[in-house]
Amino acid sequence: MTRHYNFCAGPAALPTAVLERAQREMLDYQGRGLSVMEMSHRSGEYVAIAEKAEADLRSLLAVPDNYRVLFTQGGATQQFAAVPYNLLGQGGTANFVETGIWGKKAIQEARHLFGGAHVAASSVANGHTKVPSQEAILLSDDAAYLHVTPNETIGGLAYDYTPRGLRGDGVEVPLVADLSSTILSGPLDVSDYGIIYAGAQKNIGPAGLVLVIVRDDLLDRARGDMPTLFSYRELAAAGSMINTPATYSWYLAGLVFEWLKDDIGGLVAMDAINARKAAKLYAAIDQSALYSNPIAVPNRSRMNVPFVLADDRLDGDFLREADAAGLLNLKGHRSVGGMRASLYNAVPEAAVDALVAFMADFEQRRG
Amino acid sequence: MTRHYNFCAGPAALPTAVLERAQREMLDYQGRGLSVMEMSHRSGEYVAIAEKAEADLRSLLAVPDNYRVLFTQGGATQQFAAVPYNLLGQGGTANFVETGIWGKKAIQEARHLFGGAHVAASSVANGHTKVPSQEAILLSDDAAYLHVTPNETIGGLAYDYTPRGLRGDGVEVPLVADLSSTILSGPLDVSDYGIIYAGAQKNIGPAGLVLVIVRDDLLDRARGDMPTLFSYRELAAAGSMINTPATYSWYLAGLVFEWLKDDIGGLVAMDAINARKAAKLYAAIDQSALYSNPIAVPNRSRMNVPFVLADDRLDGDFLREADAAGLLNLKGHRSVGGMRASLYNAVPEAAVDALVAFMADFEQRRG
Repeated sequence: MTRHYNFCAGPAALPTAVLERAQREMLDYQGRGLSVMEMSHRSGEYVAIAEKAEADLRSLLAVPDNYRVLFTQGGATQQFAAVPYNLLGQGGTANFVETGIWGKKAIQEARHLFGGAHVAASSVANGHTKVPSQEAILLSDDAAYLHVTPNETIGGLAYDYTPRGLRGDGVEVPLVADLSSTILSGPLDVSDYGIIYAGAQKNIGPAGLVLVIVRDDLLDRARGDMPTLFSYRELAAAGSMINTPATYSWYLAGLVFEWLKDDIGGLVAMDAINARKAAKLYAAIDQSALYSNPIAVPNRSRMNVPFVLADDRLDGDFLREADAAGLLNLKGHRSVGGMRASLYNAVPEAAVDALVAFMADFEQRRG
Repeated sequence: MTRHYNFCAGPAALPTAVLERAQREMLDYQGRGLSVMEMSHRSGEYVAIAEKAEADLRSLLAVPDNYRVLFTQGGATQQFAAVPYNLLGQGGTANFVETGIWGKKAIQEARHLFGGAHVAASSVANGHTKVPSQEAILLSDDAAYLHVTPNETIGGLAYDYTPRGLRGDGVEVPLVADLSSTILSGPLDVSDYGIIYAGAQKNIGPAGLVLVIVRDDLLDRARGDMPTLFSYRELAAAGSMINTPATYSWYLAGLVFEWLKDDIGGLVAMDAINARKAAKLYAAIDQSALYSNPIAVPNRSRMNVPFVLADDRLDGDFLREADAAGLLNLKGHRSVGGMRASLYNAVPEAAVDALVAFMADFEQRRG
């Protein structure tokens, strides 16, 4: 068995210890004679797995009691629709800060379904290299909520502050955040947000699961015309089991939460590791003549590090040689090109060390 | 390692050979140094896995070229909403035959979203023990399609014919079928249907994946106001990858398709095994004084066999003793009580033999 270093932006690397445990339990979960995949979601065994996953997540993120945790499906893209369905029942307009491709997709889905999305601020003028300041976020008078993308997975642009949804009339509207690519990478004050959602396939578990953390008082703002499975109220009332949930993905998410708690030691420890990993890679980029990253330093993402080579004719060789050296999935998103190294929780520091060494060697030979 | 016999209605038993292969490949897929769960859905390796799964499914079901195969999320329940969104764009009303709890849920979701669902026939008057005849199915004059549930998982009621959506004006409307609990249990003429959908967690793979097979000409009938991820047209255009699909579940579905082709020998062979399994269990029930099944004989489900004990005070002991004997998940659905043995493809004939022997022994001792 070989395990290479996997810098994929998602579906992304999972902790080897988690995969080993899933492998051991694949055919027979704790002597019960069946796989977790084969369990009724209503069975005592499975409900215990599901509840432990939620409890561990709540403990990791210190989720306050007035927030519900939902395990649902369809990825962040489904939440681009579910959020406005759940929050626009009393009228008003969805407001957005656009800092890249994912934020733009969220805007497009709200426009597609409900017409009048308002872009309260955008970094499009600087090529999405710098996050708008709080002062630059100008909400519409009828803003129902403010949606942000704290980390843009493709552009590698991250907020260096937690924005607030302050309307001109002094009303503060709920902050909604797509945290797909940063959740669990470090501590977070959940109470800053009305809704947090995150596709699982970066820092949580396998693709197909999406986590939603929603404040209780926001369960009463839904439109009446939405698909039942989109309803946070219905999902919360049913313990995320309106119908059969993605049981195996939920179980794997639980194993990842356990790994974060027991093997890593929690999110403060994870945060320190992630800070070191990102610092090493950005230092290597900044010290080089071949590699560069365009993002304003305070807004550089710790999770997704895009970089380009000074001569893009070297891109193919760089990727081929990296792959041969066991450094996988460094190609940038098809919409932007170049390279991207995603440094999610499950990417070990040794992977970054190996990447930095490879980059230096490649530059010396080819730069 | 112990593998018990699992009669769960879903999430249900998976073939042991499939789980063993998934276990072997868990940390390192074919020497590539990563798990399938960790692969980019856009990577060559993963696209090959996804395409082989579709090709094997097409081969098993002899899916005609003018049908698209979609791998999406949210279970059959999400399709209760997606189907009317996709088919009511030119007006008209959704028509249904109601033969049990799942059909009723589909009706309720269409009513919730679009008001006027029409029940063209129902078996409610006979307690869902007999499927309405073709002649009894009376479509509304504006019927846009006819939705049926060929096998009701909870009630154990199955069609003994393939219905047609014949309107009074002679127009034949598309037939839409929720085949969650019977797909791949035997051959099927896909061309009888406009749309087939099936939650994966019975005969396909893990919960969280749903399969949709849709005829090309139906891609043009969608409403404009639906969530993008519900759109069959968009899903088809993107090869089911509008966003990250449930990659690992798709891979496991592919392993199940391979098992059906290579280990079982295709759906004709599977059909014969399933016929034997069901015949053995119904014979045991019919020959007994303790056990009974209420369904009209021609409409008895081969996949889900509900039965009650003449004295329901024995239910608890029956379930406890069965569980202790390695016969798991025989409890009936919480909405109906009694017992239910689901005999999906992955439940081996030996499991039915063991169940029949246990039932006879229990009756002798306690009946």
